[in-house]
Amino acid sequence: MNRRIILDCDPGHDDAMAMMLAASKLSNLKLEAITTVAGNVDVEKNTNNALRLCDLLGLNDVPVAKGAAQPLVRKMKAAAHVHGKSGLDGTTLPDKPIKQIINQHAVDLIIEKIIDSDGDITIVPTGPLTNIALAIRKEPKIIPKIKEIVLMGGGTYGNRTPAAEFNIYVDAEAAKIVFESGVPIEMFGLDVTHQALATSDRMKEMSDINNPVAAAVMQMMNFYSRIYKGKLGFTRAAVHDPCPVAYLIDPTMFEMERVRVDIETKGEFTYGMTCVYTNGMTDRVPNANFARTLNQDKFWDLFIRSLKSYS
Amino acid sequence: MNRRIILDCDPGHDDAMAMMLAASKLSNLKLEAITTVAGNVDVEKNTNNALRLCDLLGLNDVPVAKGAAQPLVRKMKAAAHVHGKSGLDGTTLPDKPIKQIINQHAVDLIIEKIIDSDGDITIVPTGPLTNIALAIRKEPKIIPKIKEIVLMGGGTYGNRTPAAEFNIYVDAEAAKIVFESGVPIEMFGLDVTHQALATSDRMKEMSDINNPVAAAVMQMMNFYSRIYKGKLGFTRAAVHDPCPVAYLIDPTMFEMERVRVDIETKGEFTYGMTCVYTNGMTDRVPNANFARTLNQDKFWDLFIRSLKSYS
Amino acid sequence: MNRRIILDCDPGHDDAMAMMLAASKLSNLKLEAITTVAGNVDVEKNTNNALRLCDLLGLNDVPVAKGAAQPLVRKMKAAAHVHGKSGLDGTTLPDKPIKQIINQHAVDLIIEKIIDSDGDITIVPTGPLTNIALAIRKEPKIIPKIKEIVLMGGGTYGNRTPAAEFNIYVDAEAAKIVFESGVPIEMFGLDVTHQALATSDRMKEMSDINNPVAAAVMQMMNFYSRIYKGKLGFTRAAVHDPCPVAYLIDPTMFEMERVRVDIETKGEFTYGMTCVYTNGMTDRVPNANFARTLNQDKFWDLFIRSLKSYS
Amino acid sequence: MNRRIILDCDPGHDDAMAMMLAASKLSNLKLEAITTVAGNVDVEKNTNNALRLCDLLGLNDVPVAKGAAQPLVRKMKAAAHVHGKSGLDGTTLPDKPIKQIINQHAVDLIIEKIIDSDGDITIVPTGPLTNIALAIRKEPKIIPKIKEIVLMGGGTYGNRTPAAEFNIYVDAEAAKIVFESGVPIEMFGLDVTHQALATSDRMKEMSDINNPVAAAVMQMMNFYSRIYKGKLGFTRAAVHDPCPVAYLIDPTMFEMERVRVDIETKGEFTYGMTCVYTNGMTDRVPNANFARTLNQDKFWDLFIRSLKSYS
Repeated sequence: MNRRIILDCDPGHDDAMAMMLAASKLSNLKLEAITTVAGNVDVEKNTNNALRLCDLLGLNDVPVAKGAAQPLVRKMKAAAHVHGKSGLDGTTLPDKPIKQIINQHAVDLIIEKIIDSDGDITIVPTGPLTNIALAIRKEPKIIPKIKEIVLMGGGTYGNRTPAAEFNIYVDAEAAKIVFESGVPIEMFGLDVTHQALATSDRMKEMSDINNPVAAAVMQMMNFYSRIYKGKLGFTRAAVHDPCPVAYLIDPTMFEMERVRVDIETKGEFTYGMTCVYTNGMTDRVPNANFARTLNQDKFWDLFIRSLKSYS
Repeated sequence: MNRRIILDCDPGHDDAMAMMLAASKLSNLKLEAITTVAGNVDVEKNTNNALRLCDLLGLNDVPVAKGAAQPLVRKMKAAAHVHGKSGLDGTTLPDKPIKQIINQHAVDLIIEKIIDSDGDITIVPTGPLTNIALAIRKEPKIIPKIKEIVLMGGGTYGNRTPAAEFNIYVDAEAAKIVFESGVPIEMFGLDVTHQALATSDRMKEMSDINNPVAAAVMQMMNFYSRIYKGKLGFTRAAVHDPCPVAYLIDPTMFEMERVRVDIETKGEFTYGMTCVYTNGMTDRVPNANFARTLNQDKFWDLFIRSLKSYS
Repeated sequence: MNRRIILDCDPGHDDAMAMMLAASKLSNLKLEAITTVAGNVDVEKNTNNALRLCDLLGLNDVPVAKGAAQPLVRKMKAAAHVHGKSGLDGTTLPDKPIKQIINQHAVDLIIEKIIDSDGDITIVPTGPLTNIALAIRKEPKIIPKIKEIVLMGGGTYGNRTPAAEFNIYVDAEAAKIVFESGVPIEMFGLDVTHQALATSDRMKEMSDINNPVAAAVMQMMNFYSRIYKGKLGFTRAAVHDPCPVAYLIDPTMFEMERVRVDIETKGEFTYGMTCVYTNGMTDRVPNANFARTLNQDKFWDLFIRSLKSYS
Repeated sequence: MNRRIILDCDPGHDDAMAMMLAASKLSNLKLEAITTVAGNVDVEKNTNNALRLCDLLGLNDVPVAKGAAQPLVRKMKAAAHVHGKSGLDGTTLPDKPIKQIINQHAVDLIIEKIIDSDGDITIVPTGPLTNIALAIRKEPKIIPKIKEIVLMGGGTYGNRTPAAEFNIYVDAEAAKIVFESGVPIEMFGLDVTHQALATSDRMKEMSDINNPVAAAVMQMMNFYSRIYKGKLGFTRAAVHDPCPVAYLIDPTMFEMERVRVDIETKGEFTYGMTCVYTNGMTDRVPNANFARTLNQDKFWDLFIRSLKSYS
C-alpha cells in the first residue's frame, strides 16, 4: 500500500531531486499535495519552480498550493547564492509552467488534508518550517492526526552559520513550534545529508541515462556541484533534500538515534541551532529520531534507479 | 459616516465594556466582526463570553469568529486570577449564548474583510495580538489595506511582570510582528489605561442606571473592582480595554505622542516589554502613536452616557 | 559615632555634589576612601575630577584609588553629552589637582578596607558597579563583611534607554553580580532621584551662599541644568548621586520598600534594566530596599545647609 | 632558549598531564607560575591538587597562586562526575602537599609577571578563563604585553551541552573577554583534543615505564579512562589539556587554521558555545588560530618520552 505524503518545499535544486525520488515509478509514496514556502528564494519563484517540476515529472494530478512568503517572526534571508536567481538556475526547463496552483493557501490545504485523513498522512518538509508551524497554530487539532514529520533541516553543526543549518536558520521560531508540538519527528540534518555526496563515478553513471528527467536532474546536479566546489569550498555536492524521501522509500539505509532536539531562538551567534541531546545529556523528553549515518551505496542505487524509471 | 472596525478580543470584563461602548447608540463605529483569541482565559471560554455579550448588547448581525488557541511561539499563560474561571465571573448572564460563531477561522475572517474592503477597516485588538500576527503572516497583502490598528496593550511599565503588560506578555512575538508590520498603530497602554479609574462617584452614578446592560456592566465592575482592590493592591479598578474604543469615538480625550515602540522577545526578565522611545531617544523610525494622557471627565461622561443609551 | 563609607564614583557633576554632602561639616560620615571607575567619562578623567574635588572640599587625608577602565564584559559607552568633555565641564576648578592617587588599584583598596574592618564599612557607588563586582569576584570573603551597599542606579524606567538607567546600562553584568551577592542593598534609582529637583527658588538660595565650595557647586548646577533643559528636555535638573549620601545622613527623608531586583543582561532592547518586583509579584527572595519617595524639603534643606557649612 | 609560560589550570587529571609535559626534561618551556581557578572542582581542591603535583614533578621553585573561586558572572557548575570528589581521584599521591601557595592572588601574579616581562610570556589556560579575564579587566595594560594565549577550550561541538565545551561553558563571559581582547590566541578545542586518544597500545607502553611520575600518571589515566568508557560512553579517554602544552613544545604536530571565534553568552540552549567561523563565513576580523588536526603518533611519542624523562 502506498504511503501518503505532503511535500512542503522551496525548490531549489535538491528539493527538485526530492520530488523526482518521490514521483518515480520506484516510489511507494502517494503525493497528496505539494506546498511551497519562502526559503531558497522567494515563495513566488519557489512556487513557479514547483509547478515547472510537476510538468517535468508528470505530476498533473497533485495539487500545488502556495504558502508563507515570510518567516514567522524574523525577516526573510534567502539563499540565492546557492540556487541562483530563479532558485533553479542551470536547467533548460521552460520558464513558465503549464500546471497552475490551486486557489487555496498552503496552510489551509495542509490543515484540510490532515483533518480529512485517518491519521495516515506524513508531512515531508524540505524547506523552512513556516507553513507547518502556521498550520499547527491555526488549527491545533491537526497535531494528533499528523502521522509524522520527516524533515530535512538542522544538524549538530551549521552551514548558514557555524551553529545553524539554512532551513532552520530562516525560521527558528517555526522550528521551535514543530519540535515542541508532540508530532513524531524524523530529522535529516547536515550530519547525514553531507554523506549523500555526488561523486564523479555517480555523476558519470547518471549522465549516461537517456530520458528528459535524468537530463534535467543532471543539469541541476552540474550547476549545484559548481557552486559547492566554488563558493562553498566542498569537493562534491551534498544532496540534502532527497534524504527524508529516501528514508520513506527505504528506511534501512539510515541509522537513526532517539534524541532530544531543542531549537535556539535567543542566541547572539547561534540563532537557529538544533541542539541535539543524545542519550543521557538531558532530562528533557526525547522528541525526534535523528539520522546519524547513511548507507551511500543504497542511497545512490535508489537515486539512479529512480532516474532510470522515468521515460 | 460610520467607521468600520473589527474587534479582536478575549472577554474578559474590560473587553466586555469595550464592546458595550462600541455597540452603544452613541457610537459612530460599525462592528464588521468580532474575533476571539486566547488571552484572559482560553479561547473557548473567551468565545463563549463574546457570544453571551452579543446577546446582551443586541449584536445579532455581527459575525463572531473563533481564533487562535495558543500564542504564536510560547506556551499559553492565562489570567484567570483577574477575570475568574469563566473569564467573566460575577455576572448573571446565561451560561450558554443564543448566538453562534460562524464557521470560519478568525484569521480568515480578518483577511477576507480587509481584502474585500476599500482600506477603510480599523482593527481594534484588546487581547493578545496572535490573530493579527497570523493574518499578517498568512496574507501579507492585507498590510497596506488595514486602515489602522488601535490596540490596548503594553506601556512603559508592566502589570504581568515589572516590565510587561499582560496582552503583550502573552504573545510578544505576535506583538513584534504587528509593531514591525508598517501598519499605522495607536497604542493604549497602562500609562493611559491606569488613568481610566472607576471612582466611587462614578460607580454610584452607573449603579443608578436602570437597564439590563448597565446592570450587567455594574456586576462586572463590582467583581473586577474587588479583584483590583484585593489581590492587585489598587484602590480602584482601571478599565483598560474601552480606551481604544473611546478614542475612536472621541479622539480629543487623549493626548497622543509619536514614538518608536520595540518589543522585547529575548530578555530573561523583560519578555514582552514594549520599549517606548520618545523624541530623540533612538534613530529608529517611529511606528506608533502612544497615548499619554486621558481626559477622565470626557471618558466617563462617554462611558456613562453610552450605558444610558441602552434600554 | 561616624559611619564609615567608601565612595565609589565617576565624577561627574552629581557625583561632585554627593562628595560635597559627604564631606560637609553636617555629615556624620567618615570617608575611608574614594575609588573611581569608568562611567560618565573615562576613568582617567573621572579620577582627575575626583582629585580636583578633594582639593576643593579639603579631603586631604582620604585616599583616592583609580579603578576599572572598562565595564566587566561589554564595551564602554560614556555619557559625555551630559557631563561635557572633562566630565566636569562648566567649573573654574584648576585642571590639575594637587592631591595624587595612591599606588593601589581601587579593587584592592576596597578589598583591603573591607577585610580589615569590623564589618562596619558601607560602600556608596554612584557610578557603574564594575569595581564592586570585581572586588566581590576577586575576594568573595568580603561579601559577609560589607555592611551594606547604598547605591545610585536603576529604576522602574530608564534614561539611557526606555528600560535602563545609565549606571546599570554601562555594566549590567556587574550590577547582576552585586544584586545577587547577598550583600544588603539600598537602591536609589530614577524613581526617587527624579524627585530631587533643583527648582529656581532653590537655585536662587544656593547662589546667595558665599564660599568657594558653594560657588563651584553653583557652576556645576548651572552647567548641568542647561543640559537637562536643553538636550534632555527636562524643566529642571535632577541631582541623582547625592541621594544615597543624603539617605545615610538622614534616612527619614526617604520611603523605602522591600523588593526583589533582577538585572536584565540578555534583552535585545532592555539590557541593563533593573526589574523591581514589589510585594507579591515574584517568589524570588527580596534582595534590596528600593527608595520610592523623597521628602524634597528635607533633602534641599540638608543640601543647602551642607553648602553653607563650608567656609 | 626556553619559552616562558604561565600555566592557569584546574587540576583535574588532564591538567596534571599538561603539567607533566611542561615540567619534563624534554620540555623547552620555563614555568614562570602556576595559577589555579575554579573549574573541574572548587578552587581550594584544584589548588591543593596543583601543589601535590608540583611535589610529584619536582616543581619546587615555581610559584603557585590561588585564583578565582567563582566564574565572572554566572554561578559555578563543577565537573566532579569526571574527576571525582578530590578533582584528582584514583591516585595515591599524599592528600596534603609539602609545597605551599604564595601569598598573592593569581590575578595579581599574572598581572605582575606580564607587566614585568619583555612581552615574552605566554599564558596557557587549561581551565575556565576567569583569572585571565579578571586580569585583563583589572589591568588592561597587560593586553599588548601577553605574547599569546594558548588554551584548551571550546570546539565546534560540546561536551557539557551539545553546543558547549566544559571550560568555556563554566565561564562564557570570561571567554568572551579573552577572545575579544586582541591578544593572539591559539585554541585547542574538542575537535582536536578528541584526537588525543589513549589507545590500549599506548596505555600498555606507558604502564611499562618505571618511575613515580609515570606511575601516578597511569593511575590517573586508568581512573579517567574508566569514567570516559563508563558514564561518558567513549571507547577511550581523550587527554585534552596536554594539547596546548604539546603545541608549544612541537607546533608541527598540529594543523592550525586562522578563524573568527565568537562566544555565545545569550543563548537559551547554547550558552558557552565557541562559534568558529572559517574562511568566508563572516566579515568579522579573525581572532584565533584553531587547531584542526593532531598527528597522534608525534603526540604520543612526545608524551611517552616525557614520562620516561622523569626518574
